[in-house]
Amino acid sequence: MGAVEIDAGRLLDDLQALREIGREGRGVNRPTYSPPDMEARRWLASRMAAAGLEAGIDGIGSVLGRREAGGVAVLTGSHLETHGHAGWLDGAYGVICGLEASRALSSVPGFADCAVDVMAFADEEAHYGSFLGARSFVGALSEAEIDAATGRADGKPLRTALSEAGLAGQPRFLCPPGRYSAFLEAHIEQGDRLEAAGARIGVVSAIVGSRLYRLVFTGQANHAGTTSMARRRDAGRAALHALAALDDRMGEGPGTGLAGPHTVWTVGRITLEPGAAAVIPGRAEVLFQVRDPDPERLDAIEAALTAQAEAAAAAMRCGVGIARIARNDGAAMDPGLRAQLVRAARARVPDHWMELPSGAGHDAQHLARIMPAGMLFVPSIGGISHHPDEDTSPEDLVAGAQVFTDAVALILRQARAGSGREGRDGG
Amino acid sequence: MGAVEIDAGRLLDDLQALREIGREGRGVNRPTYSPPDMEARRWLASRMAAAGLEAGIDGIGSVLGRREAGGVAVLTGSHLETHGHAGWLDGAYGVICGLEASRALSSVPGFADCAVDVMAFADEEAHYGSFLGARSFVGALSEAEIDAATGRADGKPLRTALSEAGLAGQPRFLCPPGRYSAFLEAHIEQGDRLEAAGARIGVVSAIVGSRLYRLVFTGQANHAGTTSMARRRDAGRAALHALAALDDRMGEGPGTGLAGPHTVWTVGRITLEPGAAAVIPGRAEVLFQVRDPDPERLDAIEAALTAQAEAAAAAMRCGVGIARIARNDGAAMDPGLRAQLVRAARARVPDHWMELPSGAGHDAQHLARIMPAGMLFVPSIGGISHHPDEDTSPEDLVAGAQVFTDAVALILRQARAGSGREGRDGG
Repeated sequence: MGAVEIDAGRLLDDLQALREIGREGRGVNRPTYSPPDMEARRWLASRMAAAGLEAGIDGIGSVLGRREAGGVAVLTGSHLETHGHAGWLDGAYGVICGLEASRALSSVPGFADCAVDVMAFADEEAHYGSFLGARSFVGALSEAEIDAATGRADGKPLRTALSEAGLAGQPRFLCPPGRYSAFLEAHIEQGDRLEAAGARIGVVSAIVGSRLYRLVFTGQANHAGTTSMARRRDAGRAALHALAALDDRMGEGPGTGLAGPHTVWTVGRITLEPGAAAVIPGRAEVLFQVRDPDPERLDAIEAALTAQAEAAAAAMRCGVGIARIARNDGAAMDPGLRAQLVRAARARVPDHWMELPSGAGHDAQHLARIMPAGMLFVPSIGGISHHPDEDTSPEDLVAGAQVFTDAVALILRQARAGSGREGRDGG
Repeated sequence: MGAVEIDAGRLLDDLQALREIGREGRGVNRPTYSPPDMEARRWLASRMAAAGLEAGIDGIGSVLGRREAGGVAVLTGSHLETHGHAGWLDGAYGVICGLEASRALSSVPGFADCAVDVMAFADEEAHYGSFLGARSFVGALSEAEIDAATGRADGKPLRTALSEAGLAGQPRFLCPPGRYSAFLEAHIEQGDRLEAAGARIGVVSAIVGSRLYRLVFTGQANHAGTTSMARRRDAGRAALHALAALDDRMGEGPGTGLAGPHTVWTVGRITLEPGAAAVIPGRAEVLFQVRDPDPERLDAIEAALTAQAEAAAAAMRCGVGIARIARNDGAAMDPGLRAQLVRAARARVPDHWMELPSGAGHDAQHLARIMPAGMLFVPSIGGISHHPDEDTSPEDLVAGAQVFTDAVALILRQARAGSGREGRDGG
């Protein structure tokens, strides 16, 4: 079998058609289960059907297009909803890449017995929960969690949103055991490492884990003029000292402290109460997030955060409570799939690819629980994402889909070889 | 002339009667120009009249009780409104102390030619402006400022509030040049330095100056997972580093850094935008206040704040704007009045008095612009003020009023000696 070529025009046309659904200016606004989001799901199902896939939308809103071909199968896809008023490619690119790979390979006789299924997992962008569609598909989403979930923007119960979207009472798709040899997801990078390195393809080594902490320092609000420094119990100052000390321990660069080459940490919010110019803060609340591919490094940083917060609180005669309010373990990508993606990238864009971890979470990390999973990145211009200006050059979009399709072909061939069918079906 | 004794029961009864106006639980809620505040002003005017003073309320709400006695005059007083739902003594104590001194001295034949006028300056607590009554009385409040002022709680125009309070069209009192030899104000300490030292009387050396700054750090909001630390322009981190570095330079105690023995500094508010757990702050706004009796020290701290903010911003590739949004120069108290207060305290509470600066602003700092001004403090139990729990023991309230009255008597005698009238009137 020779190389399988994708239809670049069809790929870009589909991406542009999808961009029009919920378009606002340069960007797109398709929150999960909103009318434009549901329109996008129905549009995708129709495109899947046009590609010869059996398409359906399940009870959590995920769209699955599948083929019964008799032989090996690979699952592809990503998500359709946007992160509020954001960009046109985040999620959408991976779904259309999977669709294009499925279409391209279905027209090649040598892959007639193979299925390239495509899925758009609902709510990767967490409008109502955490990876609802991906977790539902791998059997990690309970009815009780759906009962309890509400919209982050308006507090609307997820059940209400599902009902308004016409999804109430629909069954949820559960991954058929043994069907898929692999899950492969294409996505925009959302950072600028590829662009900075002049690379057009990124092969993802791991999806980093993240942990989010809420720190609450408790002191005593008091008059900012008449309360001596020695007598204060300034919760805000305790928070500042704790965060500055932790920053020192993280180090100025790789190898100089707790931080590794891929560690990132962010103080996203600080709330001082009462928040007046002339009142010593009696309470300070901090949101601190840290991400790293290595769980042991995250453990060490958590220990340092706790120690510095407690030391700073004690020095200011304040109390402190530290709660880990979210934990995302991330996932290493399958070494075999990484090797096939590298092989495909090396053939199409020699010297213009690299391996890198993903700093953002993706559906693939949940699929990795039940099957080998891999990811491919294309560059984000200026590293911008979650913003209407998010963009990738057409050449890179096409190159990414081509490498993706080549990798799917390599994986299918290897899977067929492993299943002992190659001799019978393709010999 | 022998010692003049106050009527302790009359003093405490008046304080309790005033406490009932706007009382809420243990505390009092009399915002400037509110119905209870105006009731308190009318009540005070009636008490002044009962004491033989000619009483009136002016166009900014200040209450003045005066006597035409033919000889020297001292002005006393403080304010009546509370800082929201707060305590019963802040302001009220100084007004009633002045009234009691006026009453006690008016009954002593040797002071028949002396006037102890009493004033309640409107809005020391800044519900509508900055020391409106005191500044109006010393000629430092323009009609244009009144036109522009609005309520801090509800944005109501000051003109509307004055009209609703029945004050529109009333003339404002302007201090008659040359009438007063001195202004003397009694007040609760609002801190715990007297209590900690076992002192019952504080003689105020100076009212500290304060400066309030708004720092705005500007970086770039970005994805907290995919943006490497090296590439970030984290406005929140720039703010944290600037504030921690300034804290280091202030020093851990007197003499170890920029801070002097009376310096206090407060970060009252930090606002990170957009304020989400997974988004790098693109903007950070900080309110920083510093107070000190020494303007040169405040200048040095301002220079350090600017330098540290600019250095931290540059290190994070952020911009920073620093605006001084309020400046209160404070005032040194008159050395002659301090000496008389010390003399009176030493006689009544030997070994239980001390000199100290005031960390809070007071009406006296504005009166100091046009005449010698002095202040006396009584202890605040637990250092609590601006809170319903604010309190001072009855014994200390009485001792404070007695020392205050003794000091007024000393000042009147000295003024009369200075004016050459003592021989004629009292010889």
